[in-house]
Amino acid sequence: MPLPFKHLISTRQLTRADTEEILKVSAEMEKIRKKGGNELLKGKILAALFYEPSTRTRLSFETAMQRLGGEVVTAEGIQFSSLYKGETIEDTLQMVSQYADIAVMRHPEQGSAEKAASASSIPFINAGDGPGQHPTQALLDLYTIEKECGRIDGIHIAMVGDLRYGRTVHSLSYLLGLFKNVRFTLISPGELTMPEKVTGFYRENNLSFEETDDIRLGLDADVIYMTRVQQERFADRSEYERLKLKYVLSAAMLKGKKVTVMHPLPRVGEISTDVDALKNAAYFRQAGNGVPVRMALLAMLLGKA
Amino acid sequence: MPLPFKHLISTRQLTRADTEEILKVSAEMEKIRKKGGNELLKGKILAALFYEPSTRTRLSFETAMQRLGGEVVTAEGIQFSSLYKGETIEDTLQMVSQYADIAVMRHPEQGSAEKAASASSIPFINAGDGPGQHPTQALLDLYTIEKECGRIDGIHIAMVGDLRYGRTVHSLSYLLGLFKNVRFTLISPGELTMPEKVTGFYRENNLSFEETDDIRLGLDADVIYMTRVQQERFADRSEYERLKLKYVLSAAMLKGKKVTVMHPLPRVGEISTDVDALKNAAYFRQAGNGVPVRMALLAMLLGKA
Amino acid sequence: MPLPFKHLISTRQLTRADTEEILKVSAEMEKIRKKGGNELLKGKILAALFYEPSTRTRLSFETAMQRLGGEVVTAEGIQFSSLYKGETIEDTLQMVSQYADIAVMRHPEQGSAEKAASASSIPFINAGDGPGQHPTQALLDLYTIEKECGRIDGIHIAMVGDLRYGRTVHSLSYLLGLFKNVRFTLISPGELTMPEKVTGFYRENNLSFEETDDIRLGLDADVIYMTRVQQERFADRSEYERLKLKYVLSAAMLKGKKVTVMHPLPRVGEISTDVDALKNAAYFRQAGNGVPVRMALLAMLLGKA
Repeated sequence: MPLPFKHLISTRQLTRADTEEILKVSAEMEKIRKKGGNELLKGKILAALFYEPSTRTRLSFETAMQRLGGEVVTAEGIQFSSLYKGETIEDTLQMVSQYADIAVMRHPEQGSAEKAASASSIPFINAGDGPGQHPTQALLDLYTIEKECGRIDGIHIAMVGDLRYGRTVHSLSYLLGLFKNVRFTLISPGELTMPEKVTGFYRENNLSFEETDDIRLGLDADVIYMTRVQQERFADRSEYERLKLKYVLSAAMLKGKKVTVMHPLPRVGEISTDVDALKNAAYFRQAGNGVPVRMALLAMLLGKA
Repeated sequence: MPLPFKHLISTRQLTRADTEEILKVSAEMEKIRKKGGNELLKGKILAALFYEPSTRTRLSFETAMQRLGGEVVTAEGIQFSSLYKGETIEDTLQMVSQYADIAVMRHPEQGSAEKAASASSIPFINAGDGPGQHPTQALLDLYTIEKECGRIDGIHIAMVGDLRYGRTVHSLSYLLGLFKNVRFTLISPGELTMPEKVTGFYRENNLSFEETDDIRLGLDADVIYMTRVQQERFADRSEYERLKLKYVLSAAMLKGKKVTVMHPLPRVGEISTDVDALKNAAYFRQAGNGVPVRMALLAMLLGKA
Repeated sequence: MPLPFKHLISTRQLTRADTEEILKVSAEMEKIRKKGGNELLKGKILAALFYEPSTRTRLSFETAMQRLGGEVVTAEGIQFSSLYKGETIEDTLQMVSQYADIAVMRHPEQGSAEKAASASSIPFINAGDGPGQHPTQALLDLYTIEKECGRIDGIHIAMVGDLRYGRTVHSLSYLLGLFKNVRFTLISPGELTMPEKVTGFYRENNLSFEETDDIRLGLDADVIYMTRVQQERFADRSEYERLKLKYVLSAAMLKGKKVTVMHPLPRVGEISTDVDALKNAAYFRQAGNGVPVRMALLAMLLGKA
């Protein structure tokens, strides 16, 4: 089943059927990857446009393309953004459409992904537009939940840390809303609670959620999704320092617990390294799941899956 | 017919026969690209050395190499230039000649391309040396004129904007000088007129040209070639602001006109976006033509065309 | 014979047998490269992680991977390091291990390579950790000595310039210590003599060495290994300026001499360009030898040689 859209901008555009199809193709891609990749996208070129650097996301997309035999051209960072000072995103995408077969973009401004897609004559994937959306992260999170827990319907997920500015927990919430009986425990300091646009979404969709500042209420969930407090969101550095390590998950806290620990990475102390050796620790596997999920999306949007 | 040189530094080294051969091979490359590329340059490596970032030119060369099955290594920007502070361009090229099969270089200093070529034991292409030459841009411009107008001999071209510092209009002028009965209408403010070295070339070669500051005199030409006024050429910012948008081409001005609109891009306002939807607008197709022209040059200089 | 280790961090971990095996495979790789490469590493991905830019080393590794049909993903420089401010090297390597099949890292801090290797589940190669080790440079130096002189046992090598901070002469010394009857002439100003850790190694291993500040004592050796005085090692700029060009090798000094001239490059004046045309000048061939040596290491560590 081909996806009913050409560009992936937001998780909001996904139906449950689309999402399940992506997860199914991702599982096939994981098998292909384990066998060393194939040549499905041979002759195809991915343009990776990172106005804002994100090595993790970029390497994940680039290796996904290469595992399917495709090629990559990259523009990243300071030089790239300064160069195009003055050129509109729309013009850049019209130009890139002449060179490559599919484009991925990370950009610091919310709404930039929609502008880019509107001008792109090749398939376009949003790899994060500032505080906006990051749909491929949400899809790999969902894929990880399904792999680790064996199901998505009926899951109990605790989200911890910066729920206010944490783009990943927003995108994932919308995606989980497509499934049945998902229960959310939202754990954050008062300054960083889940915004109304997301809790409103929970209410509209009759999703069960509770809010607390006590991390212990998340330890018996199926999944505990830790997030980093991002320094760049705070004007006041002391405020950042105070909130940064309010929640630190340690091996001692997880003793006897079955909860799957996830984190979009990088972590800066929210999860002690003594957790890494536990079976609960899924965060590096989660990062690895980005590759098959992105292989699936690249192949599907190029009409090759 | 192989090209009678190993390195492409300037359009001045091209004869009409060379130029026509490059255009012919470019047209073949465009067909190959439309079929998804081939493996003509499999096993070959292009080194893309961008001391000065130019994402557009770099992506165009890199995808050209990849469409022919070749590989690319890239060095771009600040880190690259700071690293080699102290190393001569000649040493860098001697080193790169040990790694790659062909090299492309963009450098901010005029004359750097000649130095680089003198030390390169592999074929070398100048991708712009400051205010000097940018021969592959001129060749793709010429290829675009031929494709859009069906001929080059007898063409009437209006060049608009910053004719003084605009490297592209100089290189293109020299190349058009190889053809018959080309007529130039040069449209610029008094501060930015075509330099004597180029008008002298017109005179020596009996090329017809006229100078004006009225853009309306260009609207009935076969081609109107718009250029951007480059801020970096002005010490005085207010001078730049005053001249920047002296000529803005809009859809209204093109009503009933057949003129082909070209621009080397990026534009920063010289062409209204309402022109984009018109048949006249050839500038994004022009950017796309960079790929087959560079495929042709890479293949020809590697002896594979 | 597979190498008895998964990660290459230091030349100190190499036995004579390992070293000879690497040199043997390198010679085979040089033949493969001359025939245009092969597909030994098709489907494999190298992650090139350059926290500190080093275009020379990076391009050498990247082209080595490509000559064997493998793919490369790259993270380099300012953006990369600033992005991961806060993430440990161990976490970065755990993440990269999910994407690529082998990793190469250059990092400004001594000891970073050991940290990285400890967390890497894929083979890892140290491409320089600050003032620490740079084992692939030492191996390509050794390969060059063998090619140029026909042997390593019994060689007389003069090392010239900054022997105190010059990482390459330290790593090479350890490696030459595995061979028989190697004689060292150490030529430097008093401020930049070989550190005790290396001269102590000479003594423990009964290696013959002499120290002097007179470059003429090196001109009858088999190899004269010139080094650059690195500005970044000096707090006092005038001190740097004074020592920088204390030793400048010129064609006149080499008249009638058979000594092989080596240099890890870049040079900033220590070798006059009039030396380049002499048969003695091996430094660009030396740079070129980096490719087959790195092809050998990539293939051997991936279990494909």
